[in-house]
Amino acid sequence: MTAKPKSNPGNFFEDFKPGDTLIHATPQTVTEGDLAFYRALTGNRYAQYSSAEFARSAGLPGLCADPLHAFHIVFGKTVPDISLNAVANLGYADGRLHRAVLAGDTLRAESQVIGVKENSNGKTGVVWVRTKGVNQRGEEVLSYVRWVMVNKRDVNSPAPEEIVPKLPAAVPASDLAGYPEMKSWPFAQAGSRHVLEDYEIGEKINHVDGMTVEEAEHQIATRLYQNTAKVHFDAHGQKASRFGKRLIYGGVVISTARSLAFNGLENAGQILAINAGTHVSPLFAGDTVYAWSEVLDKAELTETAGALRLRLVAVKDQDPGAFAYKDAAGKYAEGVLLDFDYWAAIPRAR
Amino acid sequence: MTAKPKSNPGNFFEDFKPGDTLIHATPQTVTEGDLAFYRALTGNRYAQYSSAEFARSAGLPGLCADPLHAFHIVFGKTVPDISLNAVANLGYADGRLHRAVLAGDTLRAESQVIGVKENSNGKTGVVWVRTKGVNQRGEEVLSYVRWVMVNKRDVNSPAPEEIVPKLPAAVPASDLAGYPEMKSWPFAQAGSRHVLEDYEIGEKINHVDGMTVEEAEHQIATRLYQNTAKVHFDAHGQKASRFGKRLIYGGVVISTARSLAFNGLENAGQILAINAGTHVSPLFAGDTVYAWSEVLDKAELTETAGALRLRLVAVKDQDPGAFAYKDAAGKYAEGVLLDFDYWAAIPRAR
Amino acid sequence: MTAKPKSNPGNFFEDFKPGDTLIHATPQTVTEGDLAFYRALTGNRYAQYSSAEFARSAGLPGLCADPLHAFHIVFGKTVPDISLNAVANLGYADGRLHRAVLAGDTLRAESQVIGVKENSNGKTGVVWVRTKGVNQRGEEVLSYVRWVMVNKRDVNSPAPEEIVPKLPAAVPASDLAGYPEMKSWPFAQAGSRHVLEDYEIGEKINHVDGMTVEEAEHQIATRLYQNTAKVHFDAHGQKASRFGKRLIYGGVVISTARSLAFNGLENAGQILAINAGTHVSPLFAGDTVYAWSEVLDKAELTETAGALRLRLVAVKDQDPGAFAYKDAAGKYAEGVLLDFDYWAAIPRAR
Repeated sequence: MTAKPKSNPGNFFEDFKPGDTLIHATPQTVTEGDLAFYRALTGNRYAQYSSAEFARSAGLPGLCADPLHAFHIVFGKTVPDISLNAVANLGYADGRLHRAVLAGDTLRAESQVIGVKENSNGKTGVVWVRTKGVNQRGEEVLSYVRWVMVNKRDVNSPAPEEIVPKLPAAVPASDLAGYPEMKSWPFAQAGSRHVLEDYEIGEKINHVDGMTVEEAEHQIATRLYQNTAKVHFDAHGQKASRFGKRLIYGGVVISTARSLAFNGLENAGQILAINAGTHVSPLFAGDTVYAWSEVLDKAELTETAGALRLRLVAVKDQDPGAFAYKDAAGKYAEGVLLDFDYWAAIPRAR
Repeated sequence: MTAKPKSNPGNFFEDFKPGDTLIHATPQTVTEGDLAFYRALTGNRYAQYSSAEFARSAGLPGLCADPLHAFHIVFGKTVPDISLNAVANLGYADGRLHRAVLAGDTLRAESQVIGVKENSNGKTGVVWVRTKGVNQRGEEVLSYVRWVMVNKRDVNSPAPEEIVPKLPAAVPASDLAGYPEMKSWPFAQAGSRHVLEDYEIGEKINHVDGMTVEEAEHQIATRLYQNTAKVHFDAHGQKASRFGKRLIYGGVVISTARSLAFNGLENAGQILAINAGTHVSPLFAGDTVYAWSEVLDKAELTETAGALRLRLVAVKDQDPGAFAYKDAAGKYAEGVLLDFDYWAAIPRAR
Repeated sequence: MTAKPKSNPGNFFEDFKPGDTLIHATPQTVTEGDLAFYRALTGNRYAQYSSAEFARSAGLPGLCADPLHAFHIVFGKTVPDISLNAVANLGYADGRLHRAVLAGDTLRAESQVIGVKENSNGKTGVVWVRTKGVNQRGEEVLSYVRWVMVNKRDVNSPAPEEIVPKLPAAVPASDLAGYPEMKSWPFAQAGSRHVLEDYEIGEKINHVDGMTVEEAEHQIATRLYQNTAKVHFDAHGQKASRFGKRLIYGGVVISTARSLAFNGLENAGQILAINAGTHVSPLFAGDTVYAWSEVLDKAELTETAGALRLRLVAVKDQDPGAFAYKDAAGKYAEGVLLDFDYWAAIPRAR
């Protein structure tokens, strides 16, 4: 038997060379079936992602994937190359969701290594990548920076030259793109009359509702995006892990919380940018997700369209009206799952 | 902080004014993905909703949503406006499912308040609405009357003038519409040779098979229809409720029982009217649904098409061949979940 | 009450007459929704079944159903006629998956009885059928032989003339059909550079990853294919059974294992033939499936396309790198679920 082992060992810290581009498998056609799945798994109700009629009247090209859905698809593809040997998913920054993904479009993903920094323990290092999602016409539909802590293959391998990319705290409002004019916006069908001008910086919104996540649900969602990280699927293997059970993919938390956020942000359905994201604590099957939001900033984009910069906080098994977040020392409160900072388009007063 | 709370408090009894029309969010495009979901979640096997070829040969315009699927979509939209503060879902009547919903159609929903009656306790009242589902061409595809018991916002608010609509015990056969000619009906592909003439009024049919419902399944189904009533999703919040756990949406019971009814009613796949419906007792995850039917009436519609009026009874964790129903005093037997009275189209003898 | 019972009693051993053809209900249109389901339920990542672009560049006509998906659809239709009264599913042979099933195609199924043999106990017999899946143009898309042990209706009925069909141990490579030229094959997008020439006969591949199967997942999958065998769905009824709980449909095991096999067989996504299949032991919800493969044979089909004959072994709750299979006496090792022998297309070196 001389054949080389065929299964994918994943990349280790030493394999990430700044400047290298990784082409990720598997390209995926985003069908109408995928859109139905995203709705059925998350409870998404934002009108422009539910009705082709509403979408067109709002200025979108037709029935599109929710931008977070597109994000999860692109992210899922990167897992076998970026995070198979990752110890921790440290953060996201500078995410831009700037082109609609119509039913029928095919997305592929690639990542450029933009930074590396070995940790002082000599066993792990941090890798920064900029990942792009590209459609079948070669157009970039989204991009984001992500950094992860990855195991070294060999603790004795020398540390690479340290490159730490400069990342913006938030995407500037002037860079936002991909929003429609929103000249026509059927408010009754959207579920709310609230426009940009109704929201105040500093305002907190209690999204009230809760959603309990089952093992079958998060597994189906995660496979939908072709994210096959074993921690989400292998109960037998996870018995020996730190948590002793399957971890839920962080994207499930983001999308569940965003869907709950409909109750109070009905007209802010389209995410334009992801400024930052932190998975504060893990979610497990049987836990119930709640969410609240804070308005961090506002921007006027056109005469009829604006944007809200929002902090979305997901908490588990507690009243989101308590607005649990951080203490004075910056330590997250018990039960906080997610701290997610993003821009969303919203119609202006007319 | 002066901004108005943004989340939806729902309507209370005082908010329902007879004659008012409520436009419900969120319109929904019914994609081929939705059709696959309905099949995968319910086990639906009626041939005209499974095969585009069969549908066209039977005289339907193509692959359509099962009428109950369309009903659940329309119903789901009404929840945030009608039943967010409801104490009980009391019944349905005069439901007409008279136009096909093709893959690609977009449904929106609106309801007119047609009756109000305060209860003697002064804390709640009954509200009657007629809800319509309308497609993207403005055509009504279905309508039904539903009545619910709703909390008052303020026990001291005065009782409104009592208006109780007169409702038919059943949709008359002469009003049935939306059925195809059924001139060509590939019986072998449909799974049975039984036609209108084979069924006798009073005949009871044991549908034999059982289906156990899991938390993930009913949650996914209920979100598919964008019904977000929190009792179905929030295990943490439900701990303090009467049942201590999530309740399964009644529409899941209806569709599960109807799909089981294939075994004995293979050619009666198309529901034309809902005469009455009562959710007798709640279903919880882990329970197994069984079903039996009784032929209540028959009607000849054309030379080749007829209709059966059927009582569909869903029971849990028991042999449906026992035909459990009501005792002499009209009290439902233990384990009865659903009492559902409807008309379905069926081919005639040829 | 004189009406005949309407529910399907299924066929008993006496009902199977060699030469008879059974037309199975229910034809099914395979929509884009079905394709999304197959991906989301199995974790399928083979590029030609994920991306319409990749499929076309590889020479397929567009986005197609995975051949196993088509197999499960056809198989599901046969259950009410073939195996409602079956005691055991004994095996498959001579399966040919030779025509693409495009999104939008409608599949129907029919079976010819090709063999019968009463067992010595006089209570059961073995029935062999050749089942064909046919599309809406009347083209055969797949066929296979299956044999099952079925109960007799009456132990006193005489034994039929014994007919035992001769079945090939494997489909000959010269009979393989339905593969594209694979002249263009975007290897980076497919996830691996391994071609026919990289695999050696006798080589074993550890597919590493594991997938835990939940009740909701296998039930949804099995309903997707319209397989309604009650052992998969009726927890209440199964309490009195040998296992005391729901059994998972064997097709779920096959597809889960094949999806895990992506890790090491990335370019061998298209199954061309099923040589043999044995469900060695049952899978239950909560179990974790792992898989390994052995290369049994290789074939050159064209200048650019070849085929691997593979043994796919699924095991539960154990390291697939132990390659558990059979002992010297031919007895399967503890935890082996499936022994599946098939041909898959793979690009050749270029």
